[in-house]
This record gives sequence, structure tokens and C-alpha cells, in this order.
Amino acid sequence: MMNRRYAYENSFEVKEKIDEVKIAILPIGAVEAHGPHLPLATDNILAERLSERLAEKVGAFVLPTLPYGQVWSLRDFPGSITVSNESLIRFLVDIGSSLYNQGFRIWAMVNAHLGNQTALKEAARILYDRHPDFKIFYFFYPGMNTVAKGIRETEAVHSTYFHACELETSIMLYLAEEFTDMEKAIRDIPQIPEAADYTPTPWQEFTKTAVLGDATLATKEKGEVIVETALERMADILRRAKDELV
Amino acid sequence: MMNRRYAYENSFEVKEKIDEVKIAILPIGAVEAHGPHLPLATDNILAERLSERLAEKVGAFVLPTLPYGQVWSLRDFPGSITVSNESLIRFLVDIGSSLYNQGFRIWAMVNAHLGNQTALKEAARILYDRHPDFKIFYFFYPGMNTVAKGIRETEAVHSTYFHACELETSIMLYLAEEFTDMEKAIRDIPQIPEAADYTPTPWQEFTKTAVLGDATLATKEKGEVIVETALERMADILRRAKDELV
Amino acid sequence: MMNRRYAYENSFEVKEKIDEVKIAILPIGAVEAHGPHLPLATDNILAERLSERLAEKVGAFVLPTLPYGQVWSLRDFPGSITVSNESLIRFLVDIGSSLYNQGFRIWAMVNAHLGNQTALKEAARILYDRHPDFKIFYFFYPGMNTVAKGIRETEAVHSTYFHACELETSIMLYLAEEFTDMEKAIRDIPQIPEAADYTPTPWQEFTKTAVLGDATLATKEKGEVIVETALERMADILRRAKDELV
Amino acid sequence: MMNRRYAYENSFEVKEKIDEVKIAILPIGAVEAHGPHLPLATDNILAERLSERLAEKVGAFVLPTLPYGQVWSLRDFPGSITVSNESLIRFLVDIGSSLYNQGFRIWAMVNAHLGNQTALKEAARILYDRHPDFKIFYFFYPGMNTVAKGIRETEAVHSTYFHACELETSIMLYLAEEFTDMEKAIRDIPQIPEAADYTPTPWQEFTKTAVLGDATLATKEKGEVIVETALERMADILRRAKDELV
Amino acid sequence: MMNRRYAYENSFEVKEKIDEVKIAILPIGAVEAHGPHLPLATDNILAERLSERLAEKVGAFVLPTLPYGQVWSLRDFPGSITVSNESLIRFLVDIGSSLYNQGFRIWAMVNAHLGNQTALKEAARILYDRHPDFKIFYFFYPGMNTVAKGIRETEAVHSTYFHACELETSIMLYLAEEFTDMEKAIRDIPQIPEAADYTPTPWQEFTKTAVLGDATLATKEKGEVIVETALERMADILRRAKDELV
Amino acid sequence: MMNRRYAYENSFEVKEKIDEVKIAILPIGAVEAHGPHLPLATDNILAERLSERLAEKVGAFVLPTLPYGQVWSLRDFPGSITVSNESLIRFLVDIGSSLYNQGFRIWAMVNAHLGNQTALKEAARILYDRHPDFKIFYFFYPGMNTVAKGIRETEAVHSTYFHACELETSIMLYLAEEFTDMEKAIRDIPQIPEAADYTPTPWQEFTKTAVLGDATLATKEKGEVIVETALERMADILRRAKDELV
Repeated sequence: MMNRRYAYENSFEVKEKIDEVKIAILPIGAVEAHGPHLPLATDNILAERLSERLAEKVGAFVLPTLPYGQVWSLRDFPGSITVSNESLIRFLVDIGSSLYNQGFRIWAMVNAHLGNQTALKEAARILYDRHPDFKIFYFFYPGMNTVAKGIRETEAVHSTYFHACELETSIMLYLAEEFTDMEKAIRDIPQIPEAADYTPTPWQEFTKTAVLGDATLATKEKGEVIVETALERMADILRRAKDELV
Repeated sequence: MMNRRYAYENSFEVKEKIDEVKIAILPIGAVEAHGPHLPLATDNILAERLSERLAEKVGAFVLPTLPYGQVWSLRDFPGSITVSNESLIRFLVDIGSSLYNQGFRIWAMVNAHLGNQTALKEAARILYDRHPDFKIFYFFYPGMNTVAKGIRETEAVHSTYFHACELETSIMLYLAEEFTDMEKAIRDIPQIPEAADYTPTPWQEFTKTAVLGDATLATKEKGEVIVETALERMADILRRAKDELV
Repeated sequence: MMNRRYAYENSFEVKEKIDEVKIAILPIGAVEAHGPHLPLATDNILAERLSERLAEKVGAFVLPTLPYGQVWSLRDFPGSITVSNESLIRFLVDIGSSLYNQGFRIWAMVNAHLGNQTALKEAARILYDRHPDFKIFYFFYPGMNTVAKGIRETEAVHSTYFHACELETSIMLYLAEEFTDMEKAIRDIPQIPEAADYTPTPWQEFTKTAVLGDATLATKEKGEVIVETALERMADILRRAKDELV
Repeated sequence: MMNRRYAYENSFEVKEKIDEVKIAILPIGAVEAHGPHLPLATDNILAERLSERLAEKVGAFVLPTLPYGQVWSLRDFPGSITVSNESLIRFLVDIGSSLYNQGFRIWAMVNAHLGNQTALKEAARILYDRHPDFKIFYFFYPGMNTVAKGIRETEAVHSTYFHACELETSIMLYLAEEFTDMEKAIRDIPQIPEAADYTPTPWQEFTKTAVLGDATLATKEKGEVIVETALERMADILRRAKDELV
Repeated sequence: MMNRRYAYENSFEVKEKIDEVKIAILPIGAVEAHGPHLPLATDNILAERLSERLAEKVGAFVLPTLPYGQVWSLRDFPGSITVSNESLIRFLVDIGSSLYNQGFRIWAMVNAHLGNQTALKEAARILYDRHPDFKIFYFFYPGMNTVAKGIRETEAVHSTYFHACELETSIMLYLAEEFTDMEKAIRDIPQIPEAADYTPTPWQEFTKTAVLGDATLATKEKGEVIVETALERMADILRRAKDELV
Repeated sequence: MMNRRYAYENSFEVKEKIDEVKIAILPIGAVEAHGPHLPLATDNILAERLSERLAEKVGAFVLPTLPYGQVWSLRDFPGSITVSNESLIRFLVDIGSSLYNQGFRIWAMVNAHLGNQTALKEAARILYDRHPDFKIFYFFYPGMNTVAKGIRETEAVHSTYFHACELETSIMLYLAEEFTDMEKAIRDIPQIPEAADYTPTPWQEFTKTAVLGDATLATKEKGEVIVETALERMADILRRAKDELV
């Protein structure tokens, strides 16, 4: 199977390869506070490595990472950079239309930052109306919820968020150990008020560290389960989509 | 002098460093056809390497590269991906406001793709009204026009465009030789109709290769003159801007 | 406690009452296919009745119901009417700013249609920046997930969707029995493909009826548990928000 | 003739009925100050009752009332809620496109709030270009001006506005007496400066009550003439439009 | 009194004059079909001449004419050029903000094309919120309706429209006889369907000539009454507005 | 050859003439400070006279001048009026679509204000996608750079700007001597900082007069060379475009 980094192709040879692989994968993350032990680029690094692994599995082009995302909840933490949903949607719709015009018929956005998911879904729906024969995916760790239960040694602090914690740090250990400083890892279990699900709630209201749980419990093995599950599910979905093209 | 890749900092330590360096540098390029000898990512690679060199000179943070740009003229060439001016402007304005909120007071966009220049300038003007004490720069090889005359062995095919040619290939040889395949370099001198400056003109109307000149004449030395000139001018301007902050 | 329908007040007396109750509740639903046994207005009826009950509990004004929502997934089913996220966001932001200008300091959107949740959250965030002292809530059956497990006789067909099924029909039986025709209730358990969470998927791809489960198992008692739980949680949150105003 | 409230239909049966009646009627009003004797919801109540009567006459579906409108002139009066023209236009265009997709070919907006008329007309024109075979009407008491002259005991305070006055109160007495409190009705005849037609003029500049005339002179009989005239004209126009469909 | 054409001033002297006259007058018309005897520029010519006369009366600067307007109804007639309400609103808001920044405190848009009136009013309202101490007027022949009754020899074909007819041609004869070709003037009395007030209705549905009445009855004297009435009213309003500035 | 002022045609005769000439010319300038010796309307006067001369050469309609443009750099100078790029783009796109609908197939915007060039180019590109068979030009003194070198007695103060200087004043002397007051002409040679090309720089940062050079050296003869060169080039391009239509 081919695994090609799209941007390192040249324009004399790329057309034919697009027609062959048909799938473009866009890693998308964010620049966002991730506690003392993980870099601001954590979500970008994860999106990129996941994308490369996924591309190996299905034969696909990996596009350059879009490293800026919607970081409303943590925008006031040191280092975070945020773009609005509206700006992100427009930007992605343009990229998507371009990919379609270049001959791609499947586009997988591999997202490692939950805050982007709304914009990705909206962009996909806009493109759905514009190019009905263009299959677009917005992945965020499929299968995560199911496998997480068997892995966690601590309870989740929230039903959908996980951040710089036992889980995400494990994923980093598995995919990008060199950027993970376990000596600085901390345990910080916030009380997230119930209202946070129903009213705009910047995270400084309940955490000073941006670590939502116990990062010291992270292990490479936990990360492996999450990542391999997610990869297998994404690969399955993309393979099926590709089969349906023919 | 400090040269820091911003996204690899962590949020516990970054605030203080921002207050010290005060300058953020954004590399911005495009995914665009660059002939047979240069990759689609050429402008991204150049923007990134220029930014790193510039950051060394002035002490600054280098932000993650924004790898998608406005590629109207070459959008129909194999491999190109384009975003509209409007989308790019909004995206950059959001990033800029975030940087300001994080404490940066100088923002240099180091652009290696001429097609972005309109959007960068507009974004900077919008931010100028919003944050009057935020100095924003949109650089595209300052000094290039002056030094190019002494370097070129062939005449320019256009007064402002240069693309995948003697000059840009030289810059690649100097900054990123490993991505430059001189064995595939070609000479293709198009006749650009005068009207192209005054009417929408996709480049396929005058070139099949996207090479605007003689890439075979490129040398590392020519690239050095252009790059070092540009770096010195950018560094001068940023140093002066930083002095004015105090 | 006061329970007032806002729109039946007159402008000579309303100002003083606003200053007293401080809370405005907006019922919001949709016009959407709900199978053979429930009307298109199901979500509007539910939002309205929930709002009235909530207003009784906390002393609040109930605003006129906004009866049109974002119905992308079911837009092609007979009877459905949809508005885009973008249109809905703008409309709600305008209403919210008006409420703020009228003296309200707490605004609860009581939503009975999951598809609206994205727009409600975005509108609330936009208003958060505009009026920092305005507390805005976007409720969608808080506590539902927790209590549903103890109630269901059938398994959920999806982790977040429930529609015209055992649960929603139970809620209708409890709140609006007169609009529920149990003789027409059906059982229809679709196979929702995993990809539906990651790609635009109109519901006609997996259901002909728009009933996601077994509506024949609905009972008033099941509805009571869900509704009373949700009401208690919403009331708690609003009471706390009101206490914080003083 | 059928008179159906659209939202109480179910999706299994509605399609066929749409194909039969072909006409959708949208009541649209506003939440707006109407003096001491009329509720904030006056325009919504009127739009709704007019729509129901009109639907009886022509056989049509009545959609759920859109209860929020453009209330610029009275936005600062206690109780008023306003949405901008731009937001209202987008919202209506979305509803209209949905109705068209559902099979309606005639859409009558029955408007009881003059301030909405600009947005309704603009929305209709946008839809005119998008769906050339979709007939859209924006009614605001047709025939009113003609019959008003024979009814009034007081002179009009303005050539186009009438508000909470002899006329509108009469209409309320005829259509919704239960919401009209004649004991609180007042006479307040403002001097509207000529410039009000040519410059932005919030009504507080010329009235404290929002009553533009003598509400004490209202009678059910006056209301009957206005309403029955308007209904007859609207019915005529819709019947003719329906005839032209075939 | 001063009557100055703004654009022929130079920037060294204009500031002081602005501070003195304080009033800017913008002539605005359209390029629109006006029958066989009047030019496409009719509304521009009228707006300009009215503005010059008005400026003489009140001492004001006349700005360059904005010659493009919203011509929806006649957009399909030969020669017409139309811009959308939305585009026109934005353009005018920008001009208005600039005038305010230059020191003007009164801005009168003298409009000779009814189709523009919606956009002018909306632009004025947007500026009203932005610059509360900026008085903006959107004039369209004030007093016309009152005096027209005494002048007309034929009945009006519509309650608000008049176009290329007895009245407008009379105005042209009075203000711009040199552009009026009475030998080509025609009489063409259309039947405007009642529905035209309530549904999008391009004028080709009821007229082939765009002349709404009997242009052959036009006289300079009729035009004089209309024009002098309108001028007197506009001048009164502007004088009062200027008095209120002090 | 025909040279017609479009707006003075009537709608009965214009259609046939459009089909014959096929070319519409739009003069576009700005209201902008031009020193003590030139009026605010300088760019409008120049655009208009150039357009008339060009129309004579190629047989074309001259549209009414659009007298408002993007004047960001000089917006704070006395007298300047500016509209944003975004507003200008939308306005031009609307005009362009109208011209296309009227039967024009070539549209030349003759621009005499450099600040407009960005908006003109963007508008042309938007229309290019909408109407592929519509040839649109945005001219700004073609050939200027080439001939200027042979004419200038002083060095240019900037590589692309020229303003109210030896050159522009010469053009005025040649095309509109009656609006040029050479007795007030001054010499003022600013030092434009290099950074001005790379950061938002209102011109008051380097000039008090808005004269960029030595206006006293202006002569009619210099203006003639620039103007006749530009006219010849524009005429050539338009003639070729017209030939290609057939």
C-alpha cells in the first residue's frame, strides 16, 4: 500500500497518483495548553501521526497538517491560539472543494482536538450539498469511548472531554514519546460543574492546569489500545468507502 | 538570541517567554504546482526555513506553518490546493487576535507565496484598527527586486511574478537542497500576454509546466544572495519595531 | 413563584416584572418528521411544556416558542422544515441581545431538538463575549443519559440520538398525551452504520420511518422519570445562577 | 375546504396533503410594546387568527407562527424584542426553501407587524431567483388603507403607521377580544415630526405610550370591516395563484 | 450661503469648510429604463440637480453622485443596471462612516429612485447605532404625495410608484429639460395587478414601455410645484437639524 | 467609431447598440486628498477622461463614473472618503453581473486610483467563475512604469506609488488642466520607510501634504506621453478581446 506525503509530490506526477489512491487525509489539531508535560502542539502531533499510520493502512495521501483550530474553552490559557468556528468552516470548505477539483473522491479529516469537531461536521455538510459524490469524514478517535472504560484507572471527569490526562498522555506516549515529559506529569482532578454542559464555561473556571485527571497514570500500553482501535475503525470505514466508489 | 518553536513549549512556561521575545513569526506558503523538480510544498518549506533563520536573528517564536494559501492562478494545475482571499483573511485575523491576547506585540507573517500577499495585507489592516498597538508585518522576500537584477542570467518573464524558475529554484537550493531535484529542472520561457496583468488569467493560458523561466540555471549562490538580503532586511525591520515597543 | 407567559404581558407593567424574575425561558424545537404516531410539532410541544413546568419551578417568564430549528438529518422526510445553523445562530443572537437590553440577566433556551444544540451553543458563546454579565443556558434534557439506562426495555440504537422512540414517545405521553397516537406507534430498529458519526448521513440512509427504536414500549411513567429529572436539574442550575446575580 | 394546522400532521400522511393543498401560510408578528391595553404578543395573535381564517377560505396549511420580528422603532420600549432585517431575511429564506422542497408551490406570509415588511419582501425576492416556480406572498392587511378612511373617527397620525390605536385595537376586538382590555385603553395622539419619515427615529422621541391615536374608539365592527376586507383580498389573490399552478 | 461641490475642493482647505457647513449631501439615483423619452440616467440627473438646489438653500457640500442603485423591478429592461440591497447598504455605511470621520455631522442622501429607499433607511439605522451624534436623512421627494393630487390630470396607476410618467417627466422638464425629449413621450397606462404589492413582480409583467401613465401631459409647471415643495421641506428639516447641532 | 455615454441612451434604443459595441467602460476613481493644487476628485476626473478617450478609440459605452474607492492609506487626510475592499468588491460584482445580463461581453474598469486595484481584481475573478464568457479588465495606466523612467526629472519616491506628484500632476495638466492649479503646486519629497511595504502604514506617518514628490516639475508634455501610452495599450487589448468574441 502506498503512503505518500502529498506535499512532497511534484505536479508532473501527482495527478495519476491521486486517481489511484483517491483518498486524502488531513491532519487537524490545534495550538492549545496541555499542562506542564505536553507541548502546545500536542493535538497537531497526534493528528499527524495518526494520519500517517492511517495512510499506511489504506493507501492514501497525507496532506499538510492544519495546525490551528477552534480553542474557545482554553483560549485564555497561556499559549493557546484559537480561530472561530465560522473561519474554520470556510477555510475547510475551500480546501475540500480544491481536493474535489483535483480528483479526490474521499477526504478524511483526522482530528485530534475535540473543539474542532463542530466546524468539521458543518464543513462536511456544506460540501455534501455542493459535491454529492464526494465522501467526507471527520474522525475523532472512533471507538475511544468503548475502549476507554477498560483502560482507565481513574474515573473520567467528564462524559465527553478528556484532555492532557491519563488517556491523552497515554496516546502521546504511544505515538510521540519524545514530546512527552512524564517527569512533569501531574494529577489534577477538577470538579466540572454540571452547568458547564449547558452554558459557556471557559475552563479556567474549574482548572488552573488544563489537566483533566491523572496524567501520571499514563502508559504507552493504554495509548496503544486507543490508537490501534481508532486506526482500525477509521481504516475499515475508509476501505468500505473506497469499495463503494467503484 | 532565542529561537523557539512556539508549539513545542508548554503552557506553564510559555507566558513568560512571550513577554520576553514579544515577536511571533508565522510561516505561510501554499500547496501549489512548482514544475517537475520542486515539490508542491515548495512555498511552505521556504516560508518555514526563512522563519527559522529570521527567528534566530531577532529572537522570536516561530509558529506552526499555515500550509494553505490563495492559489487562484495555478488552481487548475495538478496538485494545487487553494483557499479564497476571504477565507484566508478571516483565518489570519483570528490567529492575529489570539496572538495579541497572548501578549505578543509584534507579528511577522513570513510569506513565500505571492498569491497570499493580498490577504495578508488586508488581514493586517483589519487588525490594525482592532489592536492599534499591535505591529503586524507581511513579508515577501524584501529586497528581492533589487538584488535579482544582479543575479539573473536570464531576463525576468514578468515584472512581479517569479515561479519555479532560476530564482526560486536557487532559493530552494540554498535553503532546502534535499527537496530540489536539479536533474528534473527544465527551461520553459513562456510568453505572458500583456493582458494577464489586467484580466483574470489562469496560468494554463501561457504555460504547461508552471515553470516561469530557466530553472537549470539555479545555483545555491544565487539563492544565498536573495535569502540573506531578505533576512537582513526583515531582521532590521523587526529589531526596529521591537525597539519602538519599549 | 411566578409563572408568566411573557408575550401576554403589556409594556406598561412588564419592566418591573422583568427586574423581579430576571429569567427568560425560550422554548425551541423544530418542525420534523416523528413517525406515524407523533406530530411534526413534537419537539415544539415538548419544549413548550418543559418550559412552562420549569418556569413554575423557578419563577420565570416563558417567551414565545421558536418553532423552527436545524433539521439537517431529517430534512428530506415528509413534513420537515429546516433552517441552517448560521441562520439560527444569528436569529438567536439577536433575540438574546434584545433580552439583555430589556433587563434580563439569565436566559435559558429549553431545547427539545438535538439538531439545534450546535447553534444554541454557538449563539451563547457569541453573546458571552458581547454581554459578560448575561448568563445563558442551552438545555437539552439534562440527566437524560443517566436515567435512560434504568428505564429502557430496549437497547439504544445510538449513543446520543433518540427519536420518536421508546424514550421520546414516553416523554410525549407524560407531557402531551393528547398529541400521541399510541395506536399508530411502531417498532423499527434501524442499523445505524458506524460511519454515520463521521460523515454526513441523511437518516433516509438507515430508516424509512424516522422511528429509532420501539415506540410501542413507551409509557407515561418512563416519561415522568426523564422529565422530572431534567426539570429538577434545570431548576437547580437556574436557581444557582439567580443566587449568583445578587 | 380543508384548514389544517401543519405541525399537527404526521410525516406518514402529510406529503399527500401538501400535494393537494399546495399552499402554506406562515403567520408572522412580533413581540412588541402595544400600550397598556394590548399584550406584547398582539401582532402574533393577529397574524395567527388571520392565517387560520384565510386557510379556511382557501384550503391551506397554517405553519407554526414565527413570533419574533424586526422591531427597530420600538426596540427600547419595555418588553419589545427585535431581530435585525438581515437575520430575519436569512431565517425566512431557509424556511421558504424547505417549504419548496417539501412540495409547496405557494407560500403566503401573513404579517401583522409593519416592521417586518422589508425583510419579507427581500426574502421573497431572493427565493424568486432561486425557485422561479414558487409563488411567494407577503401580506400586510391588504385593502386597509382604502377601508380605513370610511371607518376612522379620528384622523390618522401618520400616512402608513397605525399602532395600538383605534384601528389595531378594533382588529383585536374582532379577532381576539379576550386579549384586549378596553378598560385600560387610552387616547394619546402624538405629534410625529415630518423628519421621522426621513431619518432614524425611535418612537420614544414622540410617544411615551406607543399608542398612536385613540384606542378608546375601537369597536368590534370597525375591526370586522378591516379584517374581512383583508381576508377577501388575500383569498382572491391566493385562489388566482392556485388556479395558475394547474 | 455656500454651495460647494465637495470633490473640487482641495485637502488643504476643505477641513475648515466642513467644520463650517457641517452638512454633506449625497445625490443617489440609478441607471434604469425610463421609456423612450427619458435617458437611463434620469434618476441620477434628478438627484444631482435637486442636491445642488438644496445645497444652495442650506449651505452644504454636494458629494459626487452615486449613480448605481437597486433596480430589481426593472432589472430586465434594456439598459438597467442593478446592485443588491445588501451591497448598496454596505457601500453607503462605509461612505457615511468616512463622512463622520471627516467631521460632518449631518448627511442628507437625496434619492431620486424609489428602489433605493429600503437600502438607504437600513444604512442610516446601522450608522445611527455606530455614531449616535450623526444625523442622517434619506429623502425621496418629501411632500410629493400631497401636492401630486392637485397637479395630476390623470389618475395615479399605483399608490406609491410613479415612473417616467406625467409626474416624473414634469420634474425632468423643470430640472433638466435638455435631457427630455417630449416628441418621444408616450401615454401607456398599465393595469398593475393588486398582487404586485404582495409578491415579487418584475415590471415586464404589466408594462412593455416602463412608462407608468401619460408622459405627454408633463409640463415644466407641474414639475416646479413638486420640486419646490420637496426642496422647501428638505431645507426646513436640514436647517432644523443644523440648529440642533449647536 | 462610436463613443457613447451609456446613461444618456434610452431603453428603447440601447439594446441594439449594446449588441453592436459589446464593450462597457467603467471609470472608477476616489475622493482623496491630492495636495494643495489638485482637487479631491482628481482620480475621478482622470478615470472619466481616460475612459472617454478610450471609448473613442475602440467604440464602447462609457458608464457613469463610480466616484468612491478604497482610500485606506489616506483616509485620515482632510477630505478623503473610503469604502472597504469588501464593500467595493460586492458593489462591482453586482454591476458586472448586470452588464453581462444586459448583453455586454467585455467590461473594462478604467481605474485611476491604485488603492482600488485589489478590489477590482478580486471582483473580476469572482465574475470570471460566474460568467466564463465575460472578459473583464481592470486597467491602471498600463505602460506607466516603462515610460515613467524616460520622463521623470526627479527620482520616484516609491517603486509603485505615485501621487499628486510630477507624474500625476502632468497627467492632470494633459487631461484636465482646468482643475490643476500650478501656482499652488509644491515639492515635498518624503522619506517612505522601507517597512511601509510590509506593515499597515497610513501616509500621515511620512507626509503632511500627500504630495509624493515634486509637483512643480509637471508638464502637459509629460502627461501626454503617459496618457497616450496607456490609451494605446488599453485600446490594443480591448480590440484583441473584441476580435476574439467573434
